Amino acid sequence: MAAAELHHPDADRIDLTEVLAALGHPVRMEIVRTLAGAPTEFSCALVAQGLPRSTVTHHLRTLREAGVIRQSPAGRKLHLVLRRQDLERRFPGLLSLVTGEFAAPEPAVGPAP
Amino acid sequence: MAAAELHHPDADRIDLTEVLAALGHPVRMEIVRTLAGAPTEFSCALVAQGLPRSTVTHHLRTLREAGVIRQSPAGRKLHLVLRRQDLERRFPGLLSLVTGEFAAPEPAVGPAP
Repeated sequence: MAAAELHHPDADRIDLTEVLAALGHPVRMEIVRTLAGAPTEFSCALVAQGLPRSTVTHHLRTLREAGVIRQSPAGRKLHLVLRRQDLERRFPGLLSLVTGEFAAPEPAVGPAP
Repeated sequence: MAAAELHHPDADRIDLTEVLAALGHPVRMEIVRTLAGAPTEFSCALVAQGLPRSTVTHHLRTLREAGVIRQSPAGRKLHLVLRRQDLERRFPGLLSLVTGEFAAPEPAVGPAP
């Protein structure tokens, strides 16, 4: 896939339903949480390791076309970054809900042993 | 479908990824927004009118199994209700994000005519 072909929707055209559908898959959720915890741009080769690259490519395209991530060429690789500001402006709180749950999972409910 | 067979996940087992996947479809989003704006429990027959009932049944099951709605028998019909409190406790702000966008859509961006 040539970098020139990579389409990213404008921030104002990011659709909530598409974003939720993109996030609503365990692999894509894992990718988003990985990127949320990454200090800088991240290489495509480092997400969802252990899955076939064609599968990873599919999930990254779904996230990119929904407006959740940007993919930008970096030499022969693609770098990934979360579109934090765009998502926060359009859907305040969504990203922190998704990534915050990861950081602080709901405690188990039930009687003490 | 007998009412006795209707499974609803416990609130503490509602999974965010499944909820987002359930919400990430235009018909299901419309159903949720309709229920959010309904004053009381709502009849299955009144949502997503114009679609085949089998399609509506599929979407309602997806929402129910994800923990987004409850379906309860009311005579020969099923009533629907959003699981507002459960969702708000588990994923604060998600439901208002989904339904709030409906109430106050992003203004169109562009130069004035």
